[in-house]
Amino acid sequence: MKIIIVGATGTLGKHVVKALEKDHEVIKAGSKSGDLQLDISSPESIERFYEQAGSFDALISTTGNGHFGPLSTMKDADFRKGIDSKLMGQVNLVLTGQHYVNPKGSFTLTSGILSEDPIYLGANLSAINGALEAFVRAAAIELENGVRINAISPGVVEDSPGYFPFFPGHIPVTMNRVTQAYIKSVLGTQTGQVYKVF
Amino acid sequence: MKIIIVGATGTLGKHVVKALEKDHEVIKAGSKSGDLQLDISSPESIERFYEQAGSFDALISTTGNGHFGPLSTMKDADFRKGIDSKLMGQVNLVLTGQHYVNPKGSFTLTSGILSEDPIYLGANLSAINGALEAFVRAAAIELENGVRINAISPGVVEDSPGYFPFFPGHIPVTMNRVTQAYIKSVLGTQTGQVYKVF
Ligand SMILES: NC(=O)c1ccc[n+]([C@@H]2O[C@H](COP(=O)([O-])OP(=O)(O)OC[C@H]3O[C@@H](n4cnc5c(N)ncnc54)[C@H](OP(=O)(O)O)[C@@H]3O)[C@@H](O)[C@H]2O)c1
Ligand SMILES: NC(=O)c1ccc[n+]([C@@H]2O[C@H](COP(=O)([O-])OP(=O)(O)OC[C@H]3O[C@@H](n4cnc5c(N)ncnc54)[C@H](OP(=O)(O)O)[C@@H]3O)[C@@H](O)[C@H]2O)c1
Repeated sequence: MKIIIVGATGTLGKHVVKALEKDHEVIKAGSKSGDLQLDISSPESIERFYEQAGSFDALISTTGNGHFGPLSTMKDADFRKGIDSKLMGQVNLVLTGQHYVNPKGSFTLTSGILSEDPIYLGANLSAINGALEAFVRAAAIELENGVRINAISPGVVEDSPGYFPFFPGHIPVTMNRVTQAYIKSVLGTQTGQVYKVF
Repeated sequence: MKIIIVGATGTLGKHVVKALEKDHEVIKAGSKSGDLQLDISSPESIERFYEQAGSFDALISTTGNGHFGPLSTMKDADFRKGIDSKLMGQVNLVLTGQHYVNPKGSFTLTSGILSEDPIYLGANLSAINGALEAFVRAAAIELENGVRINAISPGVVEDSPGYFPFFPGHIPVTMNRVTQAYIKSVLGTQTGQVYKVF
């Protein structure tokens, strides 16, 4: 399989790359790193990226930022950071990528635990993750030619100790569990699913 | 109670107004109709609106548009119609309104069944509704002074027969059931809830 991983050099992405590159052709992408560069916050950059990458069997996105900050001072511009990056970045990877993906191919996006289990400072990421999970359920019933789509919703992961203080009482999930969820999405045959890893 | 209803003249809003105006001071708002005008897609308009409306006990939003169309031709600009109106419109009613709402006041937003039960052409509204529901769960744990927030998620309603062909097999919900969910949110004491009316 030809598998594109956007966010390939990140905390999650590098584990997914490692698990897949033995048996598959993996194209690593990032804004600065990897084999190909793109900025997911720009629809034009995504279009140029797919023109370069060509047709593929699976796209995995392990990328996207949101705004982390108190609701009491949050403004429209803060909230739109997550909209433009983690939400529209991943949505546009699908809207544009559907015209490049091979029949029976797949998209695997990344949401996160905050959609259902909120924390202080996390309102923007909660909303973005909720949007991504509902988008995946809806896109799954419209994608053509047997193309599938799922989302992985990780809890805070063991390789991100910097986040632990913001997740009191959360038990960090192992990189292996998170990685296997991406494998299940890409090599399995389910669609419209949110794989919770927490 | 002083209750602001944004979308007061709409299919849902007019029933909610009717149920509340006997016992409460209701301020009706819309882009063209009502006592006060605002454009929810403009953060500046929302700011001016609250300056005029002053402090209040409850804000109900029964408004917001999304893009309805096939995923296969959907573009970033289509998707952003729902982001700018139904999502950011309602989020900004809360981000700005939190500075005007009275202690123990409440916000009640409107999402919809598509967050979990998608239909053909509905991917944008699914995502928007999913975002709103997760936002409500997250905002509830940060709002101060006992201020509450909930979302109402209606199925297709009996007063919207024009939508029925797009909801095959859905049983339209009565206006009374939907209206009572708003009453429950405003006059009850729960927070962070999504009241499903379907
Ligand atoms: N870490 C966690 O505990 C955790 C838990 C739940 C969910 N998540 C979610 O998982 C995803 C990945 O998180 P992570 O911790 O692995 O992030 P990370 O370590 O910061 O990695 C981000 C990756 O995305 C790439 N990237 C950054 N900006 C980009 C852009 N504008 N366009 C294209 N690529 C870009 C980076 O490469 P370049 O440097 O080359 O741009 C990098 O490969 C995020 O959506 C996050 O919300 C993470
Ligand atoms: N109808 C259904 O079956 C159904 C089912 C589930 C969810 N919902 C959701 O419920 C909400 C209301 O739906 P509805 O069918 O009642 O809508 P509607 O009949 O079209 O009413 C919309 C209301 O919002 C106001 N409005 C429109 N644009 C506005 C703007 N830019 N700024 C401020 N106010 C604006 C309108 O007043 P003006 O004309 O004065 O602007 C009107 O009062 C929507 O979010 C919809 O997605 C509806």
